[in-house]
Amino acid sequence: MKNNYVFIMAGGIGSRFWPSSRQAKPKQFLDILGVGRTLIQMTFDRFTKVCPIDHIYIVTNIQYKDIVLEQLPELSEQQVLTEPSRNNTAPCICYAALKLKGMDPDANFVVAPSDHIVVKEDAFVEHINYGLSLVAHQDILLTLGIEPHNPNTGYGYIHYEKSASNDEKKVLSFKEKPDVETAKGFLESGEYLWNGGIFVWNVNSLLRAFSDYSPEILNILQKGASDFNTPNEQSFLNTYYPTTPDISIDYAIMEKADNIYTLPINVGWSDIGTWASLHDFMDKDDHSNAIGSLHSDQVDLVDTSGCMIRNQGKKLTVIHGLSDYIVVDEEDVLLIYPKSKEQAIKKLRNKVADNWGDDYQ
Amino acid sequence: MKNNYVFIMAGGIGSRFWPSSRQAKPKQFLDILGVGRTLIQMTFDRFTKVCPIDHIYIVTNIQYKDIVLEQLPELSEQQVLTEPSRNNTAPCICYAALKLKGMDPDANFVVAPSDHIVVKEDAFVEHINYGLSLVAHQDILLTLGIEPHNPNTGYGYIHYEKSASNDEKKVLSFKEKPDVETAKGFLESGEYLWNGGIFVWNVNSLLRAFSDYSPEILNILQKGASDFNTPNEQSFLNTYYPTTPDISIDYAIMEKADNIYTLPINVGWSDIGTWASLHDFMDKDDHSNAIGSLHSDQVDLVDTSGCMIRNQGKKLTVIHGLSDYIVVDEEDVLLIYPKSKEQAIKKLRNKVADNWGDDYQ
Repeated sequence: MKNNYVFIMAGGIGSRFWPSSRQAKPKQFLDILGVGRTLIQMTFDRFTKVCPIDHIYIVTNIQYKDIVLEQLPELSEQQVLTEPSRNNTAPCICYAALKLKGMDPDANFVVAPSDHIVVKEDAFVEHINYGLSLVAHQDILLTLGIEPHNPNTGYGYIHYEKSASNDEKKVLSFKEKPDVETAKGFLESGEYLWNGGIFVWNVNSLLRAFSDYSPEILNILQKGASDFNTPNEQSFLNTYYPTTPDISIDYAIMEKADNIYTLPINVGWSDIGTWASLHDFMDKDDHSNAIGSLHSDQVDLVDTSGCMIRNQGKKLTVIHGLSDYIVVDEEDVLLIYPKSKEQAIKKLRNKVADNWGDDYQ
Repeated sequence: MKNNYVFIMAGGIGSRFWPSSRQAKPKQFLDILGVGRTLIQMTFDRFTKVCPIDHIYIVTNIQYKDIVLEQLPELSEQQVLTEPSRNNTAPCICYAALKLKGMDPDANFVVAPSDHIVVKEDAFVEHINYGLSLVAHQDILLTLGIEPHNPNTGYGYIHYEKSASNDEKKVLSFKEKPDVETAKGFLESGEYLWNGGIFVWNVNSLLRAFSDYSPEILNILQKGASDFNTPNEQSFLNTYYPTTPDISIDYAIMEKADNIYTLPINVGWSDIGTWASLHDFMDKDDHSNAIGSLHSDQVDLVDTSGCMIRNQGKKLTVIHGLSDYIVVDEEDVLLIYPKSKEQAIKKLRNKVADNWGDDYQ
């Protein structure tokens, strides 16, 4: 356990959660479930069961450094890694690996998003620990695969060799978000998992993979190897990080390497990607309304069903005769939107920012 | 004109306009049309064409004295008459008459609500002035009658002697709010007007009517005749006013006296009694949405029709796919409510106050 680390990725902007999620304070920093902890706080809490707090790192945009330290006061400033630009996950993970290698040449680490939900935390932690023990002894790259329970078209899928007797299974291929017919086929075959974007690997295996499949990124960032974990780290990053290509880790490594394995898990996971997926996930009243707010006692619903409601502070929300809407009442925006059309919220967010200013973005 | 006065009644609480109208700041003190002036300010502006500003009085509950003086800085404190209790219109008008009699024994005066709207102000003023000239020379009590343009069941009706050749017509009877069939009959007959509650009378005629038909009220308040217009006025009122019976002027005088006349008017009047009547009255977009707010540029409506929307401040309101709802976004309450059910808003207000506290009342 002493070589185990966790890197929580917290640089996203959660645009499909507009108007609650904003560039200035994205989804991971919100108490979107109304439980008194933000998503990143819940993620942090979960990983404290995997390794000591001083082995947990947050990787985020420089813009969010203060908010991370505010929400996770247990962390020191050195545990918050800041990207000076948004270059997708491959450069970000490569930077994390190089830095970690400097600290602990035999490190095993988890890379996980900051804005996912896991209900069965103990089972999740068990899988993670098993994964860490695997990658410590074998040169494999592990990605967790979520056992699907519906033909979701919002996730990428992992095609895996189901027959293997071990818990870890060889990944045959990664599939982009499918259409609904394809997704139904995936579900029926039993050979597909949702790609949850949670990785477990050893630092040497991963850096070897970068060297083999994405040397461009590695070459740029390796120039700073001697600067990492010194006072020069940020200044190196500010200069070189923005010159790395904008590529996802899936595209840079996972889809190319041949030592990719997956651990199928069933832990009550959700990426809470949209208002409707939050609605699906949450406890609901007898009429299928979910209230994503600490102040659910400040909501009066009559003849109202299937709604996803988020209110702010102590404000009273009175809704009569409404079905299947998203109602989000933020300090500076009120959104009333049909749940069935929520895929357009990302576009709506851009339109609003264009017309009313970037503060709404 | 030198004997002409206007008393604007501003003690109501506008409960059907919840959650915008509250006991602490009722409808008449709100810019409900989104034009930059509150209803009482617009009413005041209208009557400055009838008489000098120092002949205009506001009669209101003591609770609203400060807000009246704030919204109508042209008035001196002496022009704001404050009832120490809510005893309906008869005691209130009797008090106004006694006070006025002390200032000007030959006064003619208008009594009008503070929360009505008149589009054709010049025509309205012309009728008012004609009414004032009538009551100055004849012992009649005049009530303005609104020519109805639909079988509204929200108003009382005035049955009048249509055949008379003068503009002023004898009132045959007053009718309570009718059901829709009765209202249709009223409309077809052409012999009925809406009772708008706007009165014109001479102070002596009115006090004579109180003496004849409602001596109980007159006897209580007359005890203070020597205190009115002295520093003792308020202390007299505080003691005696609450002991007057809770009776409307219609019931105390108008339905009993036999010298009641009406002036039929057609001046683009509305009592703006409910959200739906406000919606009817207001300018609307191509999809019949009305925005009762100064910040209509902060509203984004898509696939939305027939809605009455009121937002606050610079907050952005984004509504997609909603039809025929009232959406009112106040600082401490959000209301989303089917327009067709708005008659229940008064009850809803009570329920909310019961459950969440009197501040919501």
